[in-house]
Amino acid sequence: MTRVLILGGGGMVGQKLAAKLEAEAPDEFDLTLHDIAFPEGGPGTDRRVGNLANPAEVAALAAERFDLIYFLASIVSGEAEVDFDKGWQTNLWPMWGFLEGLRAQHRATGGAYVPKVVFTSSIAVFGGPYPDKIDDDFLQSPQTSYGAQKAACELLIQDFSRKGFIDGMSLRLPTICVRPGKPNMAASSFFSGIIREPLNGQRAMLPVPDTVRHWHASPRAAAGFLAHAATLDTERLEGRRALNLPGLSCTVAEQIEALRAAAGNDAVALIDPQPDPHIAKIVEGWPRDFAPDRAKSLGFVAETSFDEIVAIYMAEDMPKA
Amino acid sequence: MTRVLILGGGGMVGQKLAAKLEAEAPDEFDLTLHDIAFPEGGPGTDRRVGNLANPAEVAALAAERFDLIYFLASIVSGEAEVDFDKGWQTNLWPMWGFLEGLRAQHRATGGAYVPKVVFTSSIAVFGGPYPDKIDDDFLQSPQTSYGAQKAACELLIQDFSRKGFIDGMSLRLPTICVRPGKPNMAASSFFSGIIREPLNGQRAMLPVPDTVRHWHASPRAAAGFLAHAATLDTERLEGRRALNLPGLSCTVAEQIEALRAAAGNDAVALIDPQPDPHIAKIVEGWPRDFAPDRAKSLGFVAETSFDEIVAIYMAEDMPKA
Repeated sequence: MTRVLILGGGGMVGQKLAAKLEAEAPDEFDLTLHDIAFPEGGPGTDRRVGNLANPAEVAALAAERFDLIYFLASIVSGEAEVDFDKGWQTNLWPMWGFLEGLRAQHRATGGAYVPKVVFTSSIAVFGGPYPDKIDDDFLQSPQTSYGAQKAACELLIQDFSRKGFIDGMSLRLPTICVRPGKPNMAASSFFSGIIREPLNGQRAMLPVPDTVRHWHASPRAAAGFLAHAATLDTERLEGRRALNLPGLSCTVAEQIEALRAAAGNDAVALIDPQPDPHIAKIVEGWPRDFAPDRAKSLGFVAETSFDEIVAIYMAEDMPKA
Repeated sequence: MTRVLILGGGGMVGQKLAAKLEAEAPDEFDLTLHDIAFPEGGPGTDRRVGNLANPAEVAALAAERFDLIYFLASIVSGEAEVDFDKGWQTNLWPMWGFLEGLRAQHRATGGAYVPKVVFTSSIAVFGGPYPDKIDDDFLQSPQTSYGAQKAACELLIQDFSRKGFIDGMSLRLPTICVRPGKPNMAASSFFSGIIREPLNGQRAMLPVPDTVRHWHASPRAAAGFLAHAATLDTERLEGRRALNLPGLSCTVAEQIEALRAAAGNDAVALIDPQPDPHIAKIVEGWPRDFAPDRAKSLGFVAETSFDEIVAIYMAEDMPKA
């Protein structure tokens, strides 16, 4: 059995990942999920409620010497932008403490313990101006605190891995869409809301012009990225342990047309344009399109149309009437 | 008077900068230098001996509300690579503590205090494989702890600046050559040693093949970069506050020919090839050439031949016979 720890295992992506690992290889993975809270039901029998802001808890988790660790815990972009202190305290320092804890175990085992660590970074590590498509050699220049925190974590993952203390990698996730459940404080929340709410018969706010182009992947693709990362020989990363993942580039107008194709004009009529300069300013600084050649050659796969993304939401996550 | 703090003011570049500011505008700058030690004589009347590893000292320095702060303090690449703990403790955490200290002053003044901060980063933020010339959009992928620490500090400078707490920028210095004085633990130390020692009649070790190409600027150019940065309107950086600086790309063989032109075959005969795999491995991962268009358009200037770099050493720093 591979002993797996999912930090942030109560979140949407963590739950999708846990469900996928349980469903596909129940005898291969022994799952432990850690988060500040969990939804009722769902995957994971070893659920630990706790807080990575507590250094002793972080060290204790590291001391359990899991084989495979997913580091998904994070506060979202909107919250990190509003609360500077909480952003850095939540999105950077626990990573440092946890990696130091893993290094202590590495030392204590005479170098035998080298856990695999998969970190969910974000395309928010990038900042404009952008080329038409961002390639694998494009600079990190975050324009949000969230992006800066993700980029800093990538540097830690890179250096601890280079030194052989861990075997880590950072996956720069596209915006995950359609997120099930409620809107959250992520500035990207509306990208899901304008599909999810109308499909559920509710109104949705659109805070940006429909010409905004963005980079998406489904929750199913996200879980797939994470599961695939665990199987990857990191030698193939050739010392660059942060990866731009595949995704789908489309405009908000194209999203809306996919909604129309799936649910008709009545659904589209539930979208209310309500310009929000705060959200618009953050989103304006975000990437629109990528050429993620490395990740594709390493076997990472995402959707190729927004219709497909809408269909995945309707099949997997839409509340049944 | 502009109240200037130079952290790392006892180091070679700090001393060059202080001497330049004192010489060129003695009535404009009120200099305070901070370091763990200072050379005898030289510039700076307000010299503070201390250690940025002490958080209380860092906070106290921030509380003095200097107008212009140069953050040069760092341990060198070779030492940071050998001592992982000391590297991160010295090259990252004091930066965080200091920036937090400046932010506390920003708050205490109702946002009026926004100091200019100039940080000496390094081309060690980059890692191979490289294009022929590294342009201003190339990714950071450090292959040393030193490079990772510099890249992490850049992210902090960027985010604290974006939020308006400071007005910062990071200058990615070329390797500074010819460094006066003694060899140090920087993996790049030999680039200076093979010029400096023979000019002073002493033998010098060359740990890498003479085909190695690298990116250089003189101490005079380094002081010039730092002085120029203080005059720059950072609006012109357009939100990308780390800059690749101009420099000179040449091979070790070309360096040796410049030595031969300046001091003859007898000087060149003092160079002893002594391959060092540890040094060679670090240097192999370093950049060789740049196209630093942004910095050039912003008025930063470096040397255009290694002959010039040798001449600057002989004129400014070579011990008089």
